[in-house]
Amino acid sequence: MATLEFFRLQTREEVLAQYNRFAPVGVEEVELAAAGGRVLAAPVPAPEDVPTFLRAGMDGYAVRAKDTFGAGVGAPQYLEIKGEVPMGAAPPRGVGPGEALRVPTGAMLPAGADAVVMLEYTAEHPDGTLEVRKPVAPGESVLQPGEDVRLGEVLFSSGTRLRPQEIGLLAALGVTTLTVYRRPRVAVLSSGDEVVPLDQNPAPGQVRDCNAYLTAAQVQEWGGLPILKGIIPDDFASLKNALTEALGEADLILISGGSSVGARDLTLTAIKALPGAQILAHGVAIRPGKPTILASLREKAKKGGKPLLGLPGHPASAAVVMEVLGRPLINRLAGLKPPSSWGGTVTALLSRNLAGASGREDYVRVRLRLADDTLWADPILGPSGLLSPLVKSDGLVMIPLGVEGLNRDDPVSVRLFGN
Amino acid sequence: MATLEFFRLQTREEVLAQYNRFAPVGVEEVELAAAGGRVLAAPVPAPEDVPTFLRAGMDGYAVRAKDTFGAGVGAPQYLEIKGEVPMGAAPPRGVGPGEALRVPTGAMLPAGADAVVMLEYTAEHPDGTLEVRKPVAPGESVLQPGEDVRLGEVLFSSGTRLRPQEIGLLAALGVTTLTVYRRPRVAVLSSGDEVVPLDQNPAPGQVRDCNAYLTAAQVQEWGGLPILKGIIPDDFASLKNALTEALGEADLILISGGSSVGARDLTLTAIKALPGAQILAHGVAIRPGKPTILASLREKAKKGGKPLLGLPGHPASAAVVMEVLGRPLINRLAGLKPPSSWGGTVTALLSRNLAGASGREDYVRVRLRLADDTLWADPILGPSGLLSPLVKSDGLVMIPLGVEGLNRDDPVSVRLFGN
Repeated sequence: MATLEFFRLQTREEVLAQYNRFAPVGVEEVELAAAGGRVLAAPVPAPEDVPTFLRAGMDGYAVRAKDTFGAGVGAPQYLEIKGEVPMGAAPPRGVGPGEALRVPTGAMLPAGADAVVMLEYTAEHPDGTLEVRKPVAPGESVLQPGEDVRLGEVLFSSGTRLRPQEIGLLAALGVTTLTVYRRPRVAVLSSGDEVVPLDQNPAPGQVRDCNAYLTAAQVQEWGGLPILKGIIPDDFASLKNALTEALGEADLILISGGSSVGARDLTLTAIKALPGAQILAHGVAIRPGKPTILASLREKAKKGGKPLLGLPGHPASAAVVMEVLGRPLINRLAGLKPPSSWGGTVTALLSRNLAGASGREDYVRVRLRLADDTLWADPILGPSGLLSPLVKSDGLVMIPLGVEGLNRDDPVSVRLFGN
Repeated sequence: MATLEFFRLQTREEVLAQYNRFAPVGVEEVELAAAGGRVLAAPVPAPEDVPTFLRAGMDGYAVRAKDTFGAGVGAPQYLEIKGEVPMGAAPPRGVGPGEALRVPTGAMLPAGADAVVMLEYTAEHPDGTLEVRKPVAPGESVLQPGEDVRLGEVLFSSGTRLRPQEIGLLAALGVTTLTVYRRPRVAVLSSGDEVVPLDQNPAPGQVRDCNAYLTAAQVQEWGGLPILKGIIPDDFASLKNALTEALGEADLILISGGSSVGARDLTLTAIKALPGAQILAHGVAIRPGKPTILASLREKAKKGGKPLLGLPGHPASAAVVMEVLGRPLINRLAGLKPPSSWGGTVTALLSRNLAGASGREDYVRVRLRLADDTLWADPILGPSGLLSPLVKSDGLVMIPLGVEGLNRDDPVSVRLFGN
């Protein structure tokens, strides 16, 4: 137990602040079609204006706006139709005073025209005369060059996650390959003599290795590549060897410690025995998740540390620590810009009183329920050795440090699990 | 234009109601480690109780609860320590009256014991006596057999998307393979003579094929497998051939129509020329997205229709129609249970007045902004031919049919884009 006493509990913020020492993983080139969800490793400047020319924003007629001034249902203006602009081609001619050309949406505007009259405010007469029943202002129903994006403008900065709309804009600009961060490789180790593989029937006192599968699924959902390293026996040499091997192939090591104090101490001893290892945190002021470990490990002959996160043995505790501390660490390694504070949360009303954990941030599982147009957060209580409360939950409510508790009907921010 | 007049605008609900005619795609077996994010195609009953035996819920001492009654800081009870239960093994002996065994969290409870006294309420004396300073109730700090899950209970029904916690619970129960729906294969076609491939410089009046890339990225983000089929020339034979080919390899066809009325009519004609094709909707009362087409196509010699969704040509319109109509269709094919109504939304206050679209549901892009503890939704306006407003947005606000508009400071529900 001696090692425990060398460390005071750190707050969540203190742990997160130490992530800056870990550099994002390396980069790779990907085709645009495979870049959805990836994170940019370099800023992308716009290679051209979008659009590069004046375009019709509606189906209708390209005109000189001033030719339509004063038009109305009772007093239409009349223009001469001089042909049409085919989609995807240069206009056959310009538009002079008193003239109009038919244009489909997206087509290039002919020289001389500065507006489009929408189809529904016009009528074509058999003699080629256009009746205009509504005036248009210059620029109306027209897309200007560079209106969407200007040449040279930094479209997206490094650290941007590429959503479908980003992919669409890059396609519009003819960007076909991108420099993105690799997906972080995450080794997932289980320790604890009571843990057995999935295909074994646990003897009395044993449990199957559920933490590894739960944790690996989280890693995958958050954009990492999990590497399942199996169950490591609770002895110093096995733990040290397994950690050394994982260090060689992964960017981050997650080890779900034995759930007993003795097993946790052994894990800590094995971590400390690795060359250049530094324990950055041992004990975090969150509930569940107090026994969490953060360490920096050093690969032989390489500069810069790789992070190790030691997770509590209880599956529900491990899942919460992964949400609160593991996800930001994976995001850091993935090169992702910190998310804005509203990301992935909903506001709901708490449906019962909740007591906080003295001296620790308290993470309470909740299920969301919509009743009478109100969104309620129903706390799902239960020991963290149980998985089904977590399965019944939609997200977490945090009771801050120093807050005694929350009351029924308090509005709370619910951090949603992935849907 | 004649075809347009045969159809009245349908509401979003009317379109969604027709999705029931399309069956979910086929099933496949996957390993548990690869099942994260997949959708169950059969209910999973619990193969055993979890836990299967009484387990310690805390580090401490297994005792008979009644032996601790009356204990207090000033008046401790004394028990005899008879050894300990090693993690992952059967207890060496039972607990009789006045006795205690050391237990780590998760270990099996010895016979006779019905509670665990936490470490912090005890002291061990050198002679093997345990001092207990707080009484425990029967069952305290103990996990009951079946407390987490009962044998035979339907754990997860068909249509459940497997989040990390579901994966964890299945691992705990020794479930190693699962029957899940295949990922829907989605063919993405572009039409329109003004559309050119990404690696070409658009001539005057042309645009690069951004819709296909945007749409494919959405499909991928929502769990489908996009198949990029390229740009189809605007002629009847090419369109019909391309649709027939796509029908043979995909579960859903998305075709981003030319943005002109003429090109849309040609697409519609080609769809109708396929054997057994039915147009289910042509024109939807949403803005943007009015020219949307829903059709049912029939693969030669096979039963059951496959859906086709015809998207508007403007990229921002196509993106909104995909969110509002495409995503539920992909979910339907993926076998996913309909999401609950709070999923992926946040409540924010509108930062300016917004007028609705008469006779249509209006989808307005908004950016979220946190200021003075209030979450604001700032409308991002701009023609739907432009992509950058969409890129600046975090989600959509819907102004319902028949509502004239929304006012500044109104609370609105923002449907978030994927983050």
